[in-house]
This record gives sequence, structure tokens and C-alpha cells, in this order.
Amino acid sequence: MSGSGLGLVTTRHAVVATPQHPLRLVGGGVLEHVEVAYETYGELSPARDNVVLVAHALTGDAHAAGHHGDPARRGWWDDLIGPGRAVDTDRFFVVCPNLLGGCRGTTGPSSTDPATGRAYGPDFPDLEMGDLVAVHRRLLEHLGVGTVHAGVGGSLGGMQLLQWLGEEPGRLRRAVLVAATARLTAENRGFSAVAREAITSDPDYRGGRYAEHGVVPARGLKVARMLAHLTYVSAAGLETKYGREGIESYLHHQGDAFVRRFDAGSYLTLTRLLDRFDPFADPAFAKAAAAGEPEVLAISFDSDWRFGTDHSAHIVAELEAAGLVVEHHEIASPWGHDSFLLRPPGYHELVAAFLQR
Amino acid sequence: MSGSGLGLVTTRHAVVATPQHPLRLVGGGVLEHVEVAYETYGELSPARDNVVLVAHALTGDAHAAGHHGDPARRGWWDDLIGPGRAVDTDRFFVVCPNLLGGCRGTTGPSSTDPATGRAYGPDFPDLEMGDLVAVHRRLLEHLGVGTVHAGVGGSLGGMQLLQWLGEEPGRLRRAVLVAATARLTAENRGFSAVAREAITSDPDYRGGRYAEHGVVPARGLKVARMLAHLTYVSAAGLETKYGREGIESYLHHQGDAFVRRFDAGSYLTLTRLLDRFDPFADPAFAKAAAAGEPEVLAISFDSDWRFGTDHSAHIVAELEAAGLVVEHHEIASPWGHDSFLLRPPGYHELVAAFLQR
Repeated sequence: MSGSGLGLVTTRHAVVATPQHPLRLVGGGVLEHVEVAYETYGELSPARDNVVLVAHALTGDAHAAGHHGDPARRGWWDDLIGPGRAVDTDRFFVVCPNLLGGCRGTTGPSSTDPATGRAYGPDFPDLEMGDLVAVHRRLLEHLGVGTVHAGVGGSLGGMQLLQWLGEEPGRLRRAVLVAATARLTAENRGFSAVAREAITSDPDYRGGRYAEHGVVPARGLKVARMLAHLTYVSAAGLETKYGREGIESYLHHQGDAFVRRFDAGSYLTLTRLLDRFDPFADPAFAKAAAAGEPEVLAISFDSDWRFGTDHSAHIVAELEAAGLVVEHHEIASPWGHDSFLLRPPGYHELVAAFLQR
Repeated sequence: MSGSGLGLVTTRHAVVATPQHPLRLVGGGVLEHVEVAYETYGELSPARDNVVLVAHALTGDAHAAGHHGDPARRGWWDDLIGPGRAVDTDRFFVVCPNLLGGCRGTTGPSSTDPATGRAYGPDFPDLEMGDLVAVHRRLLEHLGVGTVHAGVGGSLGGMQLLQWLGEEPGRLRRAVLVAATARLTAENRGFSAVAREAITSDPDYRGGRYAEHGVVPARGLKVARMLAHLTYVSAAGLETKYGREGIESYLHHQGDAFVRRFDAGSYLTLTRLLDRFDPFADPAFAKAAAAGEPEVLAISFDSDWRFGTDHSAHIVAELEAAGLVVEHHEIASPWGHDSFLLRPPGYHELVAAFLQR
């Protein structure tokens, strides 16, 4: 929990699907070229038994810790991951891949479709959670990793790990599911629907072929992000951090910055995937997950009104009904869903203790 | 609380400001022509002492009760207002004006600016709550009404009545403030900021001169309404009414219908006014309101996360600190802020009992 953190790190890339070894998607699509951006921290042990997979959330990327040249600008989970930190890189070999369907180095809607030579755009196939997990698995094969000591993920990151527990029992020995859900509510879906409408109704969306026209649906993407940000922070957190006077300019700043770093097609693809995620709808899922006998730690935050404690409790209840004992902690934090990226008292300590078992 | 309701009603119009008797606005602007759309129900007593003013919310209109020809399509507060109902038209003379800055018959940004002969659009002056009240007062003068037996308003409607209590003590003898607030939170303002960004970034907004171009910023206005609707209903209410599967199409339906009946400029003007509303910032305000010795009933709903019980409690605390005794009831209702338009158990009964004192 101390130390100055990782130093310079670099993002690497691996090709995990080729025409000879395509990725066949759950929904029926096929991707003949999949490249994954990822970072690793720490050293793989000779026994290859010290791997921690970090799965990021909707708009995250592979750059979880350390820096890319400017020590003042560090990865999004830098205070969790590093020498002596909760995810201790003196002990663990940490792998953080950018997710499939994203736009930060891993294949997604803004990537070139090898069949046409132009960006996939609206032709990018529908993804399911299992497809994201399949890419993680291929990356670990590429790295020569079998069993995973632990997976740690927040929000959509936790959902990917949950999917993996049921899909390949035993491979993931431990999972830390932070502010995750196994099923979006109508309200969750409603906010995503508004964000998608903002994007697709932007005239620069051009039916999804904006890249070919040299434009981006920046107006819609900005509105989508401004809205999403409001749902990530609690009302009290907004009041404390930005206040009545500061909130509007803050949201504009957030929205403008997002447009520069994120792709509208990825936003559509990933929010639709989130809408559909409902693994416990299949009664076999929980049984399979329990059969792998993983250790599971669910963490939720009391002010999270997006995927709050009731969502984690739902995951716990489903897994426990299948015979697995799950640890669940609600952490007091005023910052809403965003708490998973911050450090409310007790949170990192829980993760550290769980990984050190 | 029984009866078949009012029959056919009509919307009337009154001119309450002219070049000879202009409306000088709180913020310094001047309107030389103000027309008000309003409806009345019941009969004014010979003593002119049975007036109930109904003040509507952000997107409401003068058509609160009865019907305009199709008995199946009734005013927005028809189950509250009518013969034998909580606002009993056998006893009271009910006046419901459309608010200044709106677009449903009362002067607002979509009205013609007499100085230019074209729609005001972005030139429509900034409004404050006192300006809306000033138009109410002029309408009542036009109708020959002095003291008002009671005002009843939900959300922005309640805020107009609160403003009036402090502005002209004694004129409004009773006020029912339903799901109102005296100060928006950062979160409240944030959602309005997103809605405004959606509207003003729509290319058809044309810097506010859309009417001159024969277009409307329909895409932005639709997104604004979809978003607002999510904040009007509780998460549980969305789940019950629309469910995970129905929410997206429901929001699209709501958004499309709104574009047909509401003006983007009015949305901007009125949400900015709401952002600024903060009457208790002036210590004299509460004292003035208390000096009028009005009877005040504040009603909030337990699932309202827009202007919930803490907002009503804030109003009550400020008025009571100034020496006024205020009645406040929290009503159990699963429908969030929208509850003020619905009929959760106990709500209409409270209003009826209060008005009959």
C-alpha cells in the first residue's frame, strides 16, 4: 500500500485472431483479424501461477498503471496497481487488455474491416460478454498463461470476470467484482438509450459511416458522455466536487475530452452488449460458476445508484443459490459508481487482503 | 372526490402587457406585448373570494381539466380538479394560466417580437420566477380578482407560488407546494445542462433562429425529453411500468410526442430560470413570506429523486425559521417526481382537506 508506483510502461499489441484462426462470436458473427492492446506489470513467475487479470470498464483502456513518459500522468488504476499496492506488482504478473469492441488499440467498430478495407462502422458485429472473455483467453494463451490467480474488474470489467466464471469454471481462481451487475435495470437501460439516441441522431453519425466521411458525431458523443457522467457520480458527490455553479462547465469539459478519446461506434456496441447481459437467465450458468469453486469477492459502494449494492447482492444471491460462498462488502463512499476508480477507506485494503490469501 | 368531471372547456387568451403598459422584467428586459392563455373552471363568487390559482410545471399548459371536445382526452390535472374533486369546481373558481416563457399560448421565445416581426428565438429576454408571477398577477387583475383563496402547483408550479408568497405577502392566502424546490442541486442542474447541450448542439437549432429557417431542433429536443423523463420517474417505477424490454421504445415515443408539442426555446428559457431560482438567498424573502401569514401545505413523494422530500423540507425549514408554521407531508408513491400528476393514496385527500379549511 506504499511505494512510488510503477515507472515507464508501454502498451503492447497481440494478434489473437487470424483468417486461419478466426474469432467466432456468440451472436454468429466472425472476426478474421483481432488485435489486442494490453499492458503487463510485474514478472510472470516460473510456475506461471501469479497472474492477475485486470478487466476495465466501458471507456477504459489497457493503460491501467504506471506512465507513458510523463510521471504526472498515470494509468487509470495506478493507485491500486504497483509495487506494494493492493494489486502488488512485486508479487503478481498483472495483465490489462483493452476490450474487444473498444477503440483504444483492440479491434472494434473503428478498426479496418479486412473484407472491405474500410472501417467496420455499423457493420461491426454484435458482441456478447462471452466474446470479450474469449479475447482475454486468447491473449493469456498468447502470453503462455493457464490458470489465473485472480481477476479484478470494476463495472463492465467485473461483468467480464463474472461471465468467465460461468464459462470456463476453474480457470479463474479468484475474482474481485467491483460495482458490477448481472442485469441492467430499466433505468440503466434508459440512460443508455438516451445516449445512443444522442449519437445516432447526430447528422455527423452518417448511418455509422462517419469515418468514411472524415467526420465524427462529436455533438452526440459529447451529450452521451455528459449524461453518463451524471449517472457515475452521486448527487452528494456532484455537490461537493463541482457545486451548483461548477457543474455545467465541468460536464462540458468532460464531454469535450471524451470526444477526443473515444469512438461513437464502440459506445454503441458496448452499451448494447451491456443491455443484453443477463447470465443468470440460464440456470446452468450459476451452477457452472459454482462448480469451478472460485473465491469471489463482490464490492459495492453505498452511494452508487447505477450498479449499487442491490446489483452486487443479486450476483451473490445467484451464486450462493448454486452453492458457492461469496464475500460481499458494501463500502461507504460519497462518489457513486465512480468510487471503483477512487480510494474510499477500506476498499483497496479489501482487495489486497483477498489477493494475498 | 367523486363525479364525472368537468365537461367541455375552452382556452381563452388575455393581453396583459402592451406598449403603454409593458412588462418590465426582473432581469432588466421589457416585453411590450404579453398574451396569456388560460382556462377557468367553476364560477367566481359574488365576494370574489373563492379563487384557486393552478400553476403548472415546466412543460404543462393551461388545459388542466375537462376536455376540448373529446371526453376521452382530458386536461393534465383532471383527476384533481372538477366538481366534487379535491379542487372542487362546485365551490372554487379555478384559474390555470400557461406560464410566461412557455409555448402553449402565452408569450415566449416562439412568439413574434413586435420590434422585428419575427420570432424572438434567442433574443427572448432572460426570465426570473418573479416575472412569471407578475403575469399571473396581471391575469388576475384582468379577471377582477384580488385576494386568492389558494394556489396549487406542482414542481415549477409550486415554485411560482412560493415566489409569490414572498413577493406580495397576504395576496395568496393558502399555497399547496407539491414536489417543489427552492434551490436546484448540482445534479438537477447537471441534467438540465445536458438537455440544453442536446438542443443547442443540434445543427437545426441554428443559433436559436430555427423558426426563421423553417426547422426545429427536433433531434436535440427529443434527447432532452427522453433524458428528463428518466429523472421524473423512479427506478422502481420505470421497472414496473415499462420494464427492461419496454423502456427504450417508451422513451422514443415520449421524445417524439414532445417534439410535436413543445418549443426548444421555451425549454432553454425555463430551465435556465429554474437553475437560477434561489429565493431564500435573500434573507428578507422568508420574512416577507411569513409576514403574509399564509397557510402553506408542502407535499413531497418518497421516491422523487428530482425534487424529493429534502427539497420540501428545505422550504419548510426556511419558512419556519422566519416564524411561519408550515404543514409538510411525505406521500408514499412509487412514481418518483411524476407522482404530483398521479394519485398516490392520501395525496388528493390532503389537498382537498387543506382547501376546505
